[in-house]
Amino acid sequence: MAVDWSGSTPSFLLGLDRDKRGTLGDQLQEALRSAVRSGRLSPGERLPSSRSMSKELGVSRGLVQSSYEQLEAEGYLLARGGSATRVAFTPQSSDVEAGATPTAAAMTYDFSPGRPDLRSFPMRDWMWACGEVARSASAADMGYADPRGLVQLRDVVASYVRRVRGSAAGAANVVVCSGFTQGLSLTLAVLARRGMRRVAVEDPGHLEMAELIRRAGLEPVFVPVDVDGLVVDDLAATAASAVIVTPAHQTPTGVVLAPSRRQALLTWAKDCEGIVIEDDYDSEFRYDKKPVGSLQGLSADRVVSIGSVSKSLAPALRLGWVVAPGALAAEMAEEKYRADRGSPGLDQLVLARLMASGRFDRHLRRMRGVYAGRRAALVEALAAHSPGTPLTGLAAGFHAVAGLPPGTDEGAVIAAAAERSVGLQGLARYRSDPLSGPPGIVFGFGDLREASIRTGIAAIADLLN
Amino acid sequence: MAVDWSGSTPSFLLGLDRDKRGTLGDQLQEALRSAVRSGRLSPGERLPSSRSMSKELGVSRGLVQSSYEQLEAEGYLLARGGSATRVAFTPQSSDVEAGATPTAAAMTYDFSPGRPDLRSFPMRDWMWACGEVARSASAADMGYADPRGLVQLRDVVASYVRRVRGSAAGAANVVVCSGFTQGLSLTLAVLARRGMRRVAVEDPGHLEMAELIRRAGLEPVFVPVDVDGLVVDDLAATAASAVIVTPAHQTPTGVVLAPSRRQALLTWAKDCEGIVIEDDYDSEFRYDKKPVGSLQGLSADRVVSIGSVSKSLAPALRLGWVVAPGALAAEMAEEKYRADRGSPGLDQLVLARLMASGRFDRHLRRMRGVYAGRRAALVEALAAHSPGTPLTGLAAGFHAVAGLPPGTDEGAVIAAAAERSVGLQGLARYRSDPLSGPPGIVFGFGDLREASIRTGIAAIADLLN
Repeated sequence: MAVDWSGSTPSFLLGLDRDKRGTLGDQLQEALRSAVRSGRLSPGERLPSSRSMSKELGVSRGLVQSSYEQLEAEGYLLARGGSATRVAFTPQSSDVEAGATPTAAAMTYDFSPGRPDLRSFPMRDWMWACGEVARSASAADMGYADPRGLVQLRDVVASYVRRVRGSAAGAANVVVCSGFTQGLSLTLAVLARRGMRRVAVEDPGHLEMAELIRRAGLEPVFVPVDVDGLVVDDLAATAASAVIVTPAHQTPTGVVLAPSRRQALLTWAKDCEGIVIEDDYDSEFRYDKKPVGSLQGLSADRVVSIGSVSKSLAPALRLGWVVAPGALAAEMAEEKYRADRGSPGLDQLVLARLMASGRFDRHLRRMRGVYAGRRAALVEALAAHSPGTPLTGLAAGFHAVAGLPPGTDEGAVIAAAAERSVGLQGLARYRSDPLSGPPGIVFGFGDLREASIRTGIAAIADLLN
Repeated sequence: MAVDWSGSTPSFLLGLDRDKRGTLGDQLQEALRSAVRSGRLSPGERLPSSRSMSKELGVSRGLVQSSYEQLEAEGYLLARGGSATRVAFTPQSSDVEAGATPTAAAMTYDFSPGRPDLRSFPMRDWMWACGEVARSASAADMGYADPRGLVQLRDVVASYVRRVRGSAAGAANVVVCSGFTQGLSLTLAVLARRGMRRVAVEDPGHLEMAELIRRAGLEPVFVPVDVDGLVVDDLAATAASAVIVTPAHQTPTGVVLAPSRRQALLTWAKDCEGIVIEDDYDSEFRYDKKPVGSLQGLSADRVVSIGSVSKSLAPALRLGWVVAPGALAAEMAEEKYRADRGSPGLDQLVLARLMASGRFDRHLRRMRGVYAGRRAALVEALAAHSPGTPLTGLAAGFHAVAGLPPGTDEGAVIAAAAERSVGLQGLARYRSDPLSGPPGIVFGFGDLREASIRTGIAAIADLLN
């Protein structure tokens, strides 16, 4: 039975339905709330007395009174001793927009770098580890925990980076974070607090880092990268006291920091008591030779190394780590505590279990094969369809750079490729001065099957000449 | 001669004994070390100034200073030019490394507030939802995602806060975050960017918020709380343009913001174009009457409401949400992107599934019963063993305040309770000026079984008189 509310009451309609879920009191309250919110009841407007309201609705007076009291407690209504109950306030309805998620242009062949193969996420292994953790987690594991991260994961990460990256780290050097971005922000916050002013970044490089540096109250300076990686002599001239580098596989050029440069960089850090921030983002995947060890292993007191599982497992996990000198790690833990109280506990335990079980290593081995196949497909497709195009930066990871002939309009190539539903990124977007270097395309091949790589390259090869 | 350290100092006791072996400096250092290791001093906690410490202990200021310096060098304490000395986050001793959380004092009966029942985490339901997500997750779900949070979760959260909290929100008003701390940091960062200067906090309240406000480059101002909640007239006098409130169940007093104050607060916000930041932390658990709706529902354009599952499920999940006016939510999403690229995707999908399935509601219903039982146990135990002790703030959540007789030394009560392995927190640690209000004990009963509550209260009841 639906009851219309009209007549002597204000000019709006409330329906109470005895067949609907929820008590009549709940319905009345919700109807009143929504009438106030929508403006059907305006501020100061007088409500019917509980007596007349109860009569019109055919409900008890007590029900109306308690509903009025509830809404008064919530601030929708105002009742002052003796006088009528009135509408208290005009809550504007929130600006609810249609859920417009910012989505990337849907390209059939998207070569933008930075994405691992998302279809290969080892969901079965992950769920196995979830089950193990669910069976063994203690009550304390569900509470607030050490902001540095759970010791189980810090132990496993320390031994992983020692084994795989040649790092010099114990659990006390590790701070668990949500990935490179947060790891860098924590590091920059600590450096800013310590009085640092200038932080150098690679050019070309991720320009976004300059923005993060600025947000930390520091000044970014750009240092060029050549075929041997960061030009350390130029770094020394900047008066920066920290530098962010991608030594194992430079972003975006893919060059590996040459041994002499590694040495020079660490000497620089020692001489000026500077800090080297190592973005160790895709070093697990190396093809031509043995992995180049982490810089951190060479100079544990001057290097902060940031790693994550965003490339090795999936970005959606949002788990990473900072390996830092003990004193820095302690300060970072405080930053982490202020930022978010620590990373999710269950996720940390699951990752620790996955890594300790050997399943993580097995996944990495499998993916090395997958990416090696895709890398070969890219090399072959370019050789077949655009034999004159030089491809560099292939030593590791899942992106490489194709040089364009001098004078080529990089932007025009990208636009023309997009017309053919092939997504490309140029080098210009990685340069502090977009046109300061030769044109080139950064081909990411992590999340494209071999067949797609071949078809995609065939579709745009003519543009590269 | 034993010297008690209490009063304005943190809630723990240190004894220096001039008859004992070792210098007083050694004793002080060892006492501080063990307080940090045992968790009696928690990470981030502020130590008294060397001046006031030396006065209370009856030793020279130089002795205190050199002890602080020594412990700073050892990594137990952190001191930064100008600001207070605090407990560091990395006590470098192996016993802590092996031990549990840095905050957990080893008390048999720990009444410190803010922890839900960690043993009741619905692991079976959580794993069920994990399984559902594992079966249905797409490759895209494993990648980088919308920094506001996945639309699946934002939809479910919006409908949850509409239904349970009377909020006025759609998915576009929701930003998923890691909990209250991050939600507040995102909010403060946006307000600072918009040119705000001063943010008011409740006094007594979580003093840590003042620290977060300072870190955002803003100035905290303290506004008193009385039996009706925040004194809005005093707020208006501060020239603050934002205020952080706990209207449903004030932290720590437990009072509910009175209807007239709710009204006055929203009028204040409207008049000064201010922002009310609502910490909606434990409103799911309400005993005496129906839930008081969220302030956000009354004034969706002036209120930012922050909620999480830290109390309703478990802190370790690190999942929460900000409900904000659309424009603010959009700016917060950018802050979230810079902070950590978004919260973990799988966790978001699991929570969305759990909430949409009705299992979350079922858990809440069950826990309401559990907490109501513990609340009753606390009330009864105090009535039986310390009938003169007034207990207030019982309307919601899982903490209440026991008033101590005027003139009682709160710190001494806490210290004496600790001797009996009963962990207590006093009101002083929540006050900008520790001794500015009447003494009282904040009893958290969320994570203690009824029997433990009874035994714990019986053990210390004599101290409350």
